[in-house]
Amino acid sequence: MKENEKISSAVIRRLPRYRRYLEDLLKKNVDRISSNGLSELMGYTASQIRQDLNNFGGFGQQGYGYNIKELYLQMGIILGLDREYKVIIVGSGNLGQAIANYTHYYKEGFKVCAMFDVNPRLIGLVINDIEVMDYQNIVEFMKNNKVDLGIICTNKESAQDVADKISEGGVSGIWNFAPMDLQVKDSVSLENVHLSDSLHALTYHVRHK
Amino acid sequence: MKENEKISSAVIRRLPRYRRYLEDLLKKNVDRISSNGLSELMGYTASQIRQDLNNFGGFGQQGYGYNIKELYLQMGIILGLDREYKVIIVGSGNLGQAIANYTHYYKEGFKVCAMFDVNPRLIGLVINDIEVMDYQNIVEFMKNNKVDLGIICTNKESAQDVADKISEGGVSGIWNFAPMDLQVKDSVSLENVHLSDSLHALTYHVRHK
Repeated sequence: MKENEKISSAVIRRLPRYRRYLEDLLKKNVDRISSNGLSELMGYTASQIRQDLNNFGGFGQQGYGYNIKELYLQMGIILGLDREYKVIIVGSGNLGQAIANYTHYYKEGFKVCAMFDVNPRLIGLVINDIEVMDYQNIVEFMKNNKVDLGIICTNKESAQDVADKISEGGVSGIWNFAPMDLQVKDSVSLENVHLSDSLHALTYHVRHK
Repeated sequence: MKENEKISSAVIRRLPRYRRYLEDLLKKNVDRISSNGLSELMGYTASQIRQDLNNFGGFGQQGYGYNIKELYLQMGIILGLDREYKVIIVGSGNLGQAIANYTHYYKEGFKVCAMFDVNPRLIGLVINDIEVMDYQNIVEFMKNNKVDLGIICTNKESAQDVADKISEGGVSGIWNFAPMDLQVKDSVSLENVHLSDSLHALTYHVRHK
């Protein structure tokens, strides 16, 4: 990848999708694909695809197309998937448990090492061999354990406090499911899954179809 | 709203976020806010905010700012939230159950009226008074019941079959959590929550910080 160059956030959004399609092609034992072939599958124009992949040095060979396995592996490295991430989940209700299971079965280097909640009915519950801990103990936990990513599945009211504590505790990234916009320091990456925003975009389209 | 005018998808993406902030302001008993005030809260420029809200006829009064309650209500109508949606959930594992609970507590006109699965261990389970039904019965269920939205929480392999059956059965919109891109007919609106894409965007940022 061309280091120090700023990749636009629109391109970054598309990368995981490229990787999904490459994974499907690999599973079907396809070796190579042209930008036109990818275009037909993915709906982007061939020229956009060439431009997107060019950001990373250009994996294609004119007339031969892209080597899928190589491109898939490189894409994984670019996306930071060639390492393990130690993950904690804060908020262990239905959504937190679903995300814990998702991350558990996902098996792509994401290792849930602790879950937290404030609810006494959830504290002590065991999800995939991980016991839900009392949120009161999170600062201490983070002093004694290296954590890379924090997943916030709490309500809106608690989310900023969680973000502050886990940022202070040293996470590099936060995956936020609480329906609000968090303030985090520059050294922490933040990615939101705003379910209600997504549902409302759907109802917008249904209304205006 | 100016009918028949095409609102850009970037604006549509921002609308639910406006509504969230307006809701917070209402809860704090704030009556009016200027585009500059919204800009400070939301991080968009005041000029972008005026432009966005102008798409819907312009709710602001020069020098007085926006009437928050009125704008919030109008935004709800624009987003199609002034009606009830009958919803089914297909795939009743952890994620389906979490979404069922989310939608249940969400109380904004989304009424889960059935859940389905193929797994005998899940069929018969009761989630918020809704019994999980055998997916084999979905076509018949949809013949006898008007359903507005379908939520797909199955694996990748089953998702397209589900989308076909529920589209045929008459849903107007699909909220898809399966990690794949579905093909749906033009009359059906589709909104995806691609969790893995979101997680990979996060690891991209962590890697390149």
